[in-house]
Amino acid sequence: MTDMPSEDEINARHAEKMKKIKAARDKILATKTVEKGLLIVHTGKGKGKSTAAFGMIFRSLGYGFPVAVVQFVKGSWETGERLALERFGDLVTINRLGEGFTWETQDRARDMAAARQAWETAKSLIRQGDHHIVLLDELNIVLRYDYLPLDEVITFLREEKPHDLHVIITGRNAPDQLIEIADLVTEMEMIKHPFRSGVKAQKGIEF
Amino acid sequence: MTDMPSEDEINARHAEKMKKIKAARDKILATKTVEKGLLIVHTGKGKGKSTAAFGMIFRSLGYGFPVAVVQFVKGSWETGERLALERFGDLVTINRLGEGFTWETQDRARDMAAARQAWETAKSLIRQGDHHIVLLDELNIVLRYDYLPLDEVITFLREEKPHDLHVIITGRNAPDQLIEIADLVTEMEMIKHPFRSGVKAQKGIEF
Repeated sequence: MTDMPSEDEINARHAEKMKKIKAARDKILATKTVEKGLLIVHTGKGKGKSTAAFGMIFRSLGYGFPVAVVQFVKGSWETGERLALERFGDLVTINRLGEGFTWETQDRARDMAAARQAWETAKSLIRQGDHHIVLLDELNIVLRYDYLPLDEVITFLREEKPHDLHVIITGRNAPDQLIEIADLVTEMEMIKHPFRSGVKAQKGIEF
Repeated sequence: MTDMPSEDEINARHAEKMKKIKAARDKILATKTVEKGLLIVHTGKGKGKSTAAFGMIFRSLGYGFPVAVVQFVKGSWETGERLALERFGDLVTINRLGEGFTWETQDRARDMAAARQAWETAKSLIRQGDHHIVLLDELNIVLRYDYLPLDEVITFLREEKPHDLHVIITGRNAPDQLIEIADLVTEMEMIKHPFRSGVKAQKGIEF
């Protein structure tokens, strides 16, 4: 039995180890001093890209910060988010300018015009700099279809985003040039999806 | 110039292709008829695990559905979310029962007692079945440290979760057994993080 550490010994070792981790973490944290508005990208085939962006939007609303949302593709989020956002009144600016998914509209010319209109609104909101976060929801989808010139979008974000404004861009297939200029990029990967077992989209979960 | 398709031709081909995609999608969607409460897991080293869960929580609140949150580790989210949740009054049940991160508390015995208390609360909320979603935030962390017996958690979720209740579990290092019984698993992968360029955690973005 002399080989088996007692619960007290395990706890003491744990405390010692955690003290070291804490010291190392504090040392690293002390070097993080820069504050700036981030360019954030949520991409990947998994779920949660727009949902995590809305999580940040609600967190900012909790603090009373104004936020703006430009929706580049209709249908990725709808009623639930909108109803929840409405609770925060004037703090929220929502622009639902995109068309439905391409296979719903089946109209390339209309989709392109809608993308252009959404992008012009996005540019004006970003230039204003009146918000804590501007969310460009599903912009990646529109870029993927070449409905907007990628160079124009990259140049604008790099040169005209105000220093303290956070911009979040969502959608699968984020272009490499966007990832390159972004500060924070997260890829949502699908490991398991209930759709495969015949489960349909459900209120509060999928929409 | 005869080889270059006109804009009209491109648009016509696009419409044709999208019609086919739409038909294929509709056919697949027609087979998705099951409704059930999902066991959802957000894991991985990237950001957005808790944030996307809160996105779903807010979406459900938008519909007026009651939700419950059990926090297994303090510090992963705090003020912003809490203030935003408070706008929805009685629809929200929050239980902040966990202790701080292990390197903050440096006290294994206290962390274990807190984990047990949080789990007992979680079980009682799940059994009640009064909520649309029960979020077990950072449960994976507690399981990773063996602060709760994994078998007990898996058996409970498999046998006692009401059929129509959605349960979301977050935290890196989700155990394989949990992934196995889950319906929807998303891994958040870190592609790029501003921390590396000396940027500190910022209000409304990180907390």
